[in-house]
Amino acid sequence: MKFIHTSDWHLGRQLHGESLLEQQRIALAQIAALAVEHQVDALIIAGDIYDRAIPPASAVTLLSEFLDELIGKHQIQVLITSGNHDSAERLGFAAKQMRSSGLHMVGSLSLPLTPIKLHGKQSDAWFYPISYAEPAVVRHALADDTIHSHELAMQALLEQVTQHDSENLPKVVVAHCFLDGSSESESERPLSVGGADRISPALFAPFDYVALGHLHGPQYRGVEHVRYSGSPLKYSFSEATQKKSITLVELSADAAPSIELLPINTGRDVRIIEGNLADLLLQAKDDPHADDYLMVRLSDTHALLDPMGKLRSAYPNVLHLERTGLMAQQQTGDIGRDRIKKGELEMFSDFFDQVAGQPLSAAQQQHLHSLLDDLHQGEDV
Amino acid sequence: MKFIHTSDWHLGRQLHGESLLEQQRIALAQIAALAVEHQVDALIIAGDIYDRAIPPASAVTLLSEFLDELIGKHQIQVLITSGNHDSAERLGFAAKQMRSSGLHMVGSLSLPLTPIKLHGKQSDAWFYPISYAEPAVVRHALADDTIHSHELAMQALLEQVTQHDSENLPKVVVAHCFLDGSSESESERPLSVGGADRISPALFAPFDYVALGHLHGPQYRGVEHVRYSGSPLKYSFSEATQKKSITLVELSADAAPSIELLPINTGRDVRIIEGNLADLLLQAKDDPHADDYLMVRLSDTHALLDPMGKLRSAYPNVLHLERTGLMAQQQTGDIGRDRIKKGELEMFSDFFDQVAGQPLSAAQQQHLHSLLDDLHQGEDV
Repeated sequence: MKFIHTSDWHLGRQLHGESLLEQQRIALAQIAALAVEHQVDALIIAGDIYDRAIPPASAVTLLSEFLDELIGKHQIQVLITSGNHDSAERLGFAAKQMRSSGLHMVGSLSLPLTPIKLHGKQSDAWFYPISYAEPAVVRHALADDTIHSHELAMQALLEQVTQHDSENLPKVVVAHCFLDGSSESESERPLSVGGADRISPALFAPFDYVALGHLHGPQYRGVEHVRYSGSPLKYSFSEATQKKSITLVELSADAAPSIELLPINTGRDVRIIEGNLADLLLQAKDDPHADDYLMVRLSDTHALLDPMGKLRSAYPNVLHLERTGLMAQQQTGDIGRDRIKKGELEMFSDFFDQVAGQPLSAAQQQHLHSLLDDLHQGEDV
Repeated sequence: MKFIHTSDWHLGRQLHGESLLEQQRIALAQIAALAVEHQVDALIIAGDIYDRAIPPASAVTLLSEFLDELIGKHQIQVLITSGNHDSAERLGFAAKQMRSSGLHMVGSLSLPLTPIKLHGKQSDAWFYPISYAEPAVVRHALADDTIHSHELAMQALLEQVTQHDSENLPKVVVAHCFLDGSSESESERPLSVGGADRISPALFAPFDYVALGHLHGPQYRGVEHVRYSGSPLKYSFSEATQKKSITLVELSADAAPSIELLPINTGRDVRIIEGNLADLLLQAKDDPHADDYLMVRLSDTHALLDPMGKLRSAYPNVLHLERTGLMAQQQTGDIGRDRIKKGELEMFSDFFDQVAGQPLSAAQQQHLHSLLDDLHQGEDV
């Protein structure tokens, strides 16, 4: 049994207001090509296939076309569980009518768990899809009042996996959850506040492979076969340094599964660049990837006129600007996003406040105002 | 080939703000029972399965359960085309993966048409699903600039049906459109303004059966086998006198198809009752169907305090009230809905205006105001 483990496609997602659909289309084409190249038996998507409960129709069409390609054209089975971003009910529509074609859509968590035996060219394996569910849902479904945390809920669900007779075939758990000690990114929506969503990785260790979704960075916890594939695309600048991939898994009867990360590159990266405006504008000329999605950290310590406009003329996909130079005096160089949006007048007022220790007087504000007006009138553009 | 023709389920629809989901659940259970009782080979739903592009999750679940029952439990094939209320893209998701199970979801109109051969216990037949599409879509898809009306678009599509070699098997067209001369209800959303959506029934006459959707009243046009099944439920008070049904069709090799209407009754009707308030309140005691969805036409010619509250204590599902008595002097007894919503003060002002031919003066308004206040204080409740 050879399969690809992936998750968190978030089809329909935007990055700072920019549609990522074309990037997602490229990523899906790569995933399909890799699945064919490696002759996998199945593709497993561990939740958050869409970015929200009601995805745009274009995202629905994209997924539908992908499934036609993989299942219809290449006879590769697909198993999709729903994550915390998905609408489990909508994802589960007509699931029974799709099953015989090799498409396994697992919507709302229904208990007892329904294991799925997938047929492989070399050998078969049992898959245990566990769609994302709140602990209260599991507590109610199992009529067990002691289930008051994500960990206890998962423990109860995994008990069913343990009890199931797999006829000595490997057991693969597919789940969407947060393992204690994992690395987060900014683009994940917390499952619960205050750390109540943490689950001990040790719970999953007994199974042959655990295909996890929710976290966007690829990683394993405790043992190598309990792992997050991560998302195929970067969905926030906090993921700028991550290497995105899908996970190729081959189960073995006697040994640990063989695991390989297959990189995904859409050609347009998500990066952070730093420097002063003049240098960055110069560098753009020699940057073959100037059209990457960029966050720019400007080190200039003085006010600048329309830095975003100037940057975008050189880097068309600057999505976010941080004026780190203006904030150097502060304890932290981490500038709130809303601060960046302010106009020159407000920005200078801020700056003055920081260096002078007191706000601009009304007369000073007036003076600044006319000064800025003069400057704008003197602009060529 | 024996099948049920139905359409315009509008799952998720409300009637004057009231959810109809439970009524729809009852109707679907009756349809399933009738399909089993009559041992049909297929169920054909000619568009507007949902009420809007993004139906509520509860409507999605209802349909999914219905399909499990019909297809999974009773092996009855289901063909669903999309109407003008549906999102064709969403409806078409993973359609290819459902097909082998016997579920044919036909989303966006794709050309050339894809005929579907359905297998029957006695004989087979070809079905030609034509999802709803604007003329411009057909014009573009067929690259034919002369297509500038619904009729010309349908003519071009039906040409493909005519050309298709059905190996002497019957041809059944499934379409969602407006046939010239048909009877409309208030709950249908016009396909086009000014009558540009009209299609001549004669276009459809050559086929063995034409299963139409869009109009909510069952009817045929021109020939008996070109017909609308109508909706299974009443979706407006303009449908109060319609008898709702699904259409049982049995095709024959040599003769015209046999057609029978099978009534659908959810137990809670949509009715209009008329009379004065006191009489209606009395009659409620002997009305075994007092919980029907009601529009009440009150003949009282004087102002009434909280007639809706009083009516609802006797008829719990009054959804709409018309004060026909107050409007008797007007040319038409047809009262706009917004008029009903007005308070006593405004209503009396209206009334005064009608009988006196001039509006209340400021002093008269003041007097009326204090009079109404006194009346309200004197109320027991």
